[in-house]
Amino acid sequence: MTASKPMESAVPSVSIIGASGYSGAELTRLLQRHPGVRLQHLYAFSQAGKRADELYPATGCPMTYHSYEGGLESDIYFLALPHGEAHSLVPALAAAGKMVIDLSGDFRLKSTDEHEAFYGAAKPADAVMTYAMPELFRKDIAASSTVSNPGCYATSIILALAPLLLSPSGMPAVKSVACTAISGLSGAGRSAKTELSFAEMSENVRAYKVGKHQHTPEIMQALGTSATDPSFAFTFTPMIGSLVRGIYSTLTLSLDSPAETKAMKEHYQEFYREAPFVRVRQEMTEVRHVANTNFCDIHIPDTGRSTSMVVISAIDNLLKGAAGQAVQNMNIMLGLDERTGLH
Amino acid sequence: MTASKPMESAVPSVSIIGASGYSGAELTRLLQRHPGVRLQHLYAFSQAGKRADELYPATGCPMTYHSYEGGLESDIYFLALPHGEAHSLVPALAAAGKMVIDLSGDFRLKSTDEHEAFYGAAKPADAVMTYAMPELFRKDIAASSTVSNPGCYATSIILALAPLLLSPSGMPAVKSVACTAISGLSGAGRSAKTELSFAEMSENVRAYKVGKHQHTPEIMQALGTSATDPSFAFTFTPMIGSLVRGIYSTLTLSLDSPAETKAMKEHYQEFYREAPFVRVRQEMTEVRHVANTNFCDIHIPDTGRSTSMVVISAIDNLLKGAAGQAVQNMNIMLGLDERTGLH
Amino acid sequence: MTASKPMESAVPSVSIIGASGYSGAELTRLLQRHPGVRLQHLYAFSQAGKRADELYPATGCPMTYHSYEGGLESDIYFLALPHGEAHSLVPALAAAGKMVIDLSGDFRLKSTDEHEAFYGAAKPADAVMTYAMPELFRKDIAASSTVSNPGCYATSIILALAPLLLSPSGMPAVKSVACTAISGLSGAGRSAKTELSFAEMSENVRAYKVGKHQHTPEIMQALGTSATDPSFAFTFTPMIGSLVRGIYSTLTLSLDSPAETKAMKEHYQEFYREAPFVRVRQEMTEVRHVANTNFCDIHIPDTGRSTSMVVISAIDNLLKGAAGQAVQNMNIMLGLDERTGLH
Amino acid sequence: MTASKPMESAVPSVSIIGASGYSGAELTRLLQRHPGVRLQHLYAFSQAGKRADELYPATGCPMTYHSYEGGLESDIYFLALPHGEAHSLVPALAAAGKMVIDLSGDFRLKSTDEHEAFYGAAKPADAVMTYAMPELFRKDIAASSTVSNPGCYATSIILALAPLLLSPSGMPAVKSVACTAISGLSGAGRSAKTELSFAEMSENVRAYKVGKHQHTPEIMQALGTSATDPSFAFTFTPMIGSLVRGIYSTLTLSLDSPAETKAMKEHYQEFYREAPFVRVRQEMTEVRHVANTNFCDIHIPDTGRSTSMVVISAIDNLLKGAAGQAVQNMNIMLGLDERTGLH
Repeated sequence: MTASKPMESAVPSVSIIGASGYSGAELTRLLQRHPGVRLQHLYAFSQAGKRADELYPATGCPMTYHSYEGGLESDIYFLALPHGEAHSLVPALAAAGKMVIDLSGDFRLKSTDEHEAFYGAAKPADAVMTYAMPELFRKDIAASSTVSNPGCYATSIILALAPLLLSPSGMPAVKSVACTAISGLSGAGRSAKTELSFAEMSENVRAYKVGKHQHTPEIMQALGTSATDPSFAFTFTPMIGSLVRGIYSTLTLSLDSPAETKAMKEHYQEFYREAPFVRVRQEMTEVRHVANTNFCDIHIPDTGRSTSMVVISAIDNLLKGAAGQAVQNMNIMLGLDERTGLH
Repeated sequence: MTASKPMESAVPSVSIIGASGYSGAELTRLLQRHPGVRLQHLYAFSQAGKRADELYPATGCPMTYHSYEGGLESDIYFLALPHGEAHSLVPALAAAGKMVIDLSGDFRLKSTDEHEAFYGAAKPADAVMTYAMPELFRKDIAASSTVSNPGCYATSIILALAPLLLSPSGMPAVKSVACTAISGLSGAGRSAKTELSFAEMSENVRAYKVGKHQHTPEIMQALGTSATDPSFAFTFTPMIGSLVRGIYSTLTLSLDSPAETKAMKEHYQEFYREAPFVRVRQEMTEVRHVANTNFCDIHIPDTGRSTSMVVISAIDNLLKGAAGQAVQNMNIMLGLDERTGLH
Repeated sequence: MTASKPMESAVPSVSIIGASGYSGAELTRLLQRHPGVRLQHLYAFSQAGKRADELYPATGCPMTYHSYEGGLESDIYFLALPHGEAHSLVPALAAAGKMVIDLSGDFRLKSTDEHEAFYGAAKPADAVMTYAMPELFRKDIAASSTVSNPGCYATSIILALAPLLLSPSGMPAVKSVACTAISGLSGAGRSAKTELSFAEMSENVRAYKVGKHQHTPEIMQALGTSATDPSFAFTFTPMIGSLVRGIYSTLTLSLDSPAETKAMKEHYQEFYREAPFVRVRQEMTEVRHVANTNFCDIHIPDTGRSTSMVVISAIDNLLKGAAGQAVQNMNIMLGLDERTGLH
Repeated sequence: MTASKPMESAVPSVSIIGASGYSGAELTRLLQRHPGVRLQHLYAFSQAGKRADELYPATGCPMTYHSYEGGLESDIYFLALPHGEAHSLVPALAAAGKMVIDLSGDFRLKSTDEHEAFYGAAKPADAVMTYAMPELFRKDIAASSTVSNPGCYATSIILALAPLLLSPSGMPAVKSVACTAISGLSGAGRSAKTELSFAEMSENVRAYKVGKHQHTPEIMQALGTSATDPSFAFTFTPMIGSLVRGIYSTLTLSLDSPAETKAMKEHYQEFYREAPFVRVRQEMTEVRHVANTNFCDIHIPDTGRSTSMVVISAIDNLLKGAAGQAVQNMNIMLGLDERTGLH
């Protein structure tokens, strides 16, 4: 199957490579009940032989994990692998005309220098695919057969800044952004680390990778600038806290001229008028409002007329920040309503 | 007892007015085992007749709460009352020569205008007492018999900024500060509110009072400027999250000239060289490092040479942010080692 | 619409009375996306005028709450009201031939004496509807137009005991059951109580109503005996802990003759062979395995041959313990696959 | 120093072997501020070279961990090692006349068969030391120089049963006990396991080792019977839940004749009249009442006159269940008030 050739006789088949991590489990759950596709294979190297509902009983999915040995039976492949592992798999899938949605960071950055600087590893110069943020690049995604799904922090932060950076008309220019974001611990993956144990992380908050997180160049690139030569100062402090799901980003913006909160809100609402999953809300945003959903909720607290503005943005890191957005992208690529299977 | 008249025959007696809230319970716990004072009365209007160890069994304190009817038997009075209730009690205590440590916001701000703007209530023009941040104003505290204990967010944030604002020699000037701080839910007090229930706040984060929190003028005043006419832009986003104790403040500073993280750290360490409860640490700060202690931990992540700098500061909101700091202040006022009873 | 009169022209319409509590919100979420019905009205007295997605943004449901004034436009009514409030509403709905699924305790007990003893309030002698535990009474439910949805603890405990009590052939008799069950705090409803605040219940466990919980007579009745004249000793200790969703019941059974764990497991598996939502699992049951699902997971730990046996049972209190089971019952009453809309 | 030789010139010195685990950290915290001893060395193999306040900043203890190489400089040794590691160290310490308090299971069981069956490892036949449950065996402890500190579940459960089993006069006989206990995750130690990660254990409950936990024979032995030939049926289901500290045990007792709850409570209160850390309370017991304290709180819910009785018992697993009880034992061995250093 290719994106340009519509399916006629049957619903397309889909497989997940890297199905046993947290994002893979969410993909499993979403795709097995998705009305527009048929879930065919679950590939998971380390868990091969186990059933999905052994590892994730809440999925209720009785399928068995297998090692991926290069099979090409499915029409669509989701890759939910650790960074660095998708590089070698995508070329064969693409060559066979498969639809590919990659959830890793491997194909996000155009700059191989920035990739190397932030991921600490080289990557092929041609390892770039359509950056699949549906609210910003819907047409590109619809025209692509291989796409790179955005990072979780990046999703939350890009959506909070895009209306000012990508549609600046009539708005003050952004001089600097100070961003803190607190992430749920599922973001660290299904891992065995002392510092991620319940005994260490209950009732705790901890920052990490301050100013060094790999989503920084991704954010800058999506907003039309770069981490290397930025059009505005961007300081990013990621944190983990006592929650499993969710990213709560707080952005303090310094503007080059005063803005009214009210006008800003209207600008944001207009920008996302046709985006079913982005809600610019009057009420304060909370993690619980978006947990277990594909929504991104954005709130601009009323601080009157000022050159300083706060934007708050929340998502579920495993859904809008990973598996949900990936399914949203698949829907767009298949020509379906982008909400299909995502309620 | 008066502050100017040293105690000879016996350890001073101490009472707590407003002993049944969370700060009051921590004061009860600390003072009943404090070697330098004798805990005499626990006053708590709504809980009068109950014992402390009924309401707070972990204190193991068998004393009974009474309504405060104006008694003057003790040498020292801690007031841990809701904002607005201490104004009427302090004058009589002060007139009787009592040592008073007030934990509310009633006596913190010099500007009655700022008080009215941020607390939404007027206050007497003379309702100002020594602002008792021990690390900054130790001498003033030692010379005072009535003091105002700092707010919880304010403590965390002031200590994170003081080395640059109060001892700027050789350091770049601070142009703006974007501050987010996540607080434990004990900070909201012992209250019956749907939005603070476990079912609403587990696995959640929520900002509130963005740009409007009453600790803002307190922070600016302590740093030698004011909220009304600030020497640097200060944008403050307080948040609550899924923890009971702790405040985790992240400050993104914009400087007027580039600074080296390393030099900044040394400046901070030198500034707090004689402060036993402020630790400028090489390792990343976490809430758990300070929970149930009187420490304020500060960390400056290494971001190299830049005009942007991040400072992270953590305290236990009920201890260094309230009861612990109050006891620290009492120790200073009594001429004791400031660590007495605070391990 | 009546149960005996099949719907022809259109999908049946459904309304929720008491839609703004936690169970009501889950019903809202499930029914708005249910393919076999059309969600028509949300009734909620105290929240009338608000939208569902204001109070529960995660539902994404834009419908407005109204006060219920006796309307009869819908075919199906779910009642998710506090105990005691459904008594007066059901007769008119039933008289009008509506399908009624009541989630309260008002219509569960046949004995008005037991109802009065455990609920502390009288009830009409005829206030009894089909006890709608699908795995046990599927045929009765299919033949009913008004049913009473089981309680949350009751669901978890009845399903853990039914194979021995309702299908005892070849199994030892149960002499006594000691049951402890830990419930998530959503079970206490959306309420403003100090003792349910995050600050009080984080990292906490507390038993309550020991030996007095109102689900006790319901459990005994469903198992063919009664709390007043029990065929086996039943001691029930409910608890609340630091979780929002879930009930985890541990039953220690004393048997009149030794049983092999293996044989017991097979008996349970056979008993639930055709029940899509009850899983008798080889692996240990956990709350997370059933959270956000309609499953009841049962595990019998291998303790060899003994007269003492442990059965562990877990559900999501808001789904299998309330809204999910209610939808499951509606499906049965409508002649649909009972899994419809419940994945 | 030996127990029979009083200290004259100086406070005794104390060292901790295995200081870097959670119990070791609590010992560090308690002993560094204990007025009756001087903390001398912290031994921790895997963390040697680090400082205590690096690994556990909340202790504020600047001492460095060293590998234990057989030193004998201290008067008192606490051993907080994984099971099986103390066997080889104790003989040399005892031979040198040191006071030894071992927190592992190595020296608790008299029966080597039961030790082998429940710990899965053999042990020397003479590896038995005084079982140091202060409330039951205070005199034996005072006369011993080497003692074995009880297990955490065992402490909670033994204290809940001792008044009936060890002082049965006038009380009905206990026929069977069904016990469930939920433990905080610090009980699993400072470890890197996927199944103990925050992402897996937040909002979760999971039973384990049902009927097989190694504290079972310890409980039976302390109560004057044995797991091999028990005088009453004892079924034990340990669980872990979403808390760091605490054990909450619920015991459902079947008695041979009816008892009044009131008489039972008085019997318990009388039994523990002189035990400063055991509180038989009128109010319901909660984990938070004992967290961060050395208390064991016991509550007997009022279930009237019955042959079935529930006893609820709560402790902090790291304090009364480990380090706190160990210090309590040291106090008794040194002839100090047993509350010294434990508030």
